[in-house]
Amino acid sequence: MKLAIIGVGLIGGSFAAALKAAGKVTHVTGAGRSRENLELARSHGLIDAIATDPASAARDADLVLLATPVAQFPQIFAALARALAPRCVLTDAGSTKCDVIAAARASLGAKLAQFVPGHPIAGAEQSGAQAAAATLFHERRVVLTPLAENAAASVQRVEDAWRACGARVSRLEAEEHDALLAAVSHLPHVLAYALVDDIARRPNAGELFSFAAGGFRDFTRIASSSPEMWRDICLANRERLLAELGRYRARLGELERLLAAGDGAALERLFAGARAARNQWLKSSS
Amino acid sequence: MKLAIIGVGLIGGSFAAALKAAGKVTHVTGAGRSRENLELARSHGLIDAIATDPASAARDADLVLLATPVAQFPQIFAALARALAPRCVLTDAGSTKCDVIAAARASLGAKLAQFVPGHPIAGAEQSGAQAAAATLFHERRVVLTPLAENAAASVQRVEDAWRACGARVSRLEAEEHDALLAAVSHLPHVLAYALVDDIARRPNAGELFSFAAGGFRDFTRIASSSPEMWRDICLANRERLLAELGRYRARLGELERLLAAGDGAALERLFAGARAARNQWLKSSS
Repeated sequence: MKLAIIGVGLIGGSFAAALKAAGKVTHVTGAGRSRENLELARSHGLIDAIATDPASAARDADLVLLATPVAQFPQIFAALARALAPRCVLTDAGSTKCDVIAAARASLGAKLAQFVPGHPIAGAEQSGAQAAAATLFHERRVVLTPLAENAAASVQRVEDAWRACGARVSRLEAEEHDALLAAVSHLPHVLAYALVDDIARRPNAGELFSFAAGGFRDFTRIASSSPEMWRDICLANRERLLAELGRYRARLGELERLLAAGDGAALERLFAGARAARNQWLKSSS
Repeated sequence: MKLAIIGVGLIGGSFAAALKAAGKVTHVTGAGRSRENLELARSHGLIDAIATDPASAARDADLVLLATPVAQFPQIFAALARALAPRCVLTDAGSTKCDVIAAARASLGAKLAQFVPGHPIAGAEQSGAQAAAATLFHERRVVLTPLAENAAASVQRVEDAWRACGARVSRLEAEEHDALLAAVSHLPHVLAYALVDDIARRPNAGELFSFAAGGFRDFTRIASSSPEMWRDICLANRERLLAELGRYRARLGELERLLAAGDGAALERLFAGARAARNQWLKSSS
């Protein structure tokens, strides 16, 4: 199987590495904006060849993974509409699905049925090919949100590839995917960015940071994520994320009222409930 | 040196373990509410003897560490006021300092000068003696907020003990300590608890948790912290924490306006600034 990766970063590079490690692909072509990153990907053995643009990368492939920030998808879809061979299946790694599907519908034309939308729920605050690892998707979830137009065999090809990477694959409606991820992924990223931004802009930021410890470090780890990628995710899932932000601010307001009233019993109940729910989740997900 | 630990949990137990490992103490007496926890501490070698109450634990000690949740401090101070030998120095590990000092002033009477307030900025979401480790304070910060009444030698004794645990010790005004910690510790804890609480209370909580990944896990790690301890910290530092919460909610409101306006450039600047500040902090603190 010939694979093309458009956007050979953490996700794209890891997908290539994992499929190579599993013996599922014989040749990988990479395309992307940064020649330096592509050279690095080739020198690390993630890809075998560098294409000058997405269409050239995809032309000879059996499977194409689109793994750039989502704002680039519309123009890449337009280019791929002219390049995809009939046997080729296109999938993506975008963190939002409704907007990606809308872009595909607008630009892929007759090739739409060859596009199987997907989202590997894996990542790290590092980005770029140098952060790629064949093990990134081990035991991680990958969600596919197939289109009514997809042939079953196309969806199966994408599912098989992710399973070969060690991932657990499930299927969802795109709307449901975006609503779930807004709450458990997009919201916490924005909350972490907001906290670090607020601390960093104070006159005594240096002193504040000097007293930050392990709790702060872990809480804000996701604030070291790619700003461009998260800009795109926020804009793409704007309505759902705004709803989550509004909801969270209201919750904080309730918590402030408990605190202002000195209601220790209610605070302790809230904290204990959260701890129990989190620990239960950790247990069930391990 | 004879040491007494009142509250042999993660912090108290680790302090005892570290001072024993450094050869600085010959005998450790522990007191606390849970006999089971104290037996565990003794079987793990953290303490040598179990006292029935704080006063008995402290009576023969050269150094006493008070490491219970801070809401218990007033009654323990009252008990210690009658028990501390003139040569004994008392310190604490409370995460807030203004309220602890107020309680000490109210209850320690003539023994006030023997109390050197302190705060080891170290911890973990685990609690209890079973989580204690001699290495917990290695390279961690400990802040002392000495009283005007303290003899220099008393402050030095506490500082020496923490240095023997491998900690970096500094001194601050209590008010400054509480304001700094409200921003970089107390606020993030409350934010993490609030997010988990909000997810856990939804009808589709199970499904939401099932799509949560590593980012959510790290962001919410501190929501597995002791509910009782954090109830006490929130109440003790209530005014400063309320100010931080109000400030943070306002920042989120600004961020929502950027998002609602679709201002991708401003969002990306904010995210990039936060990432740069965090990465700079990680570099300077490693």
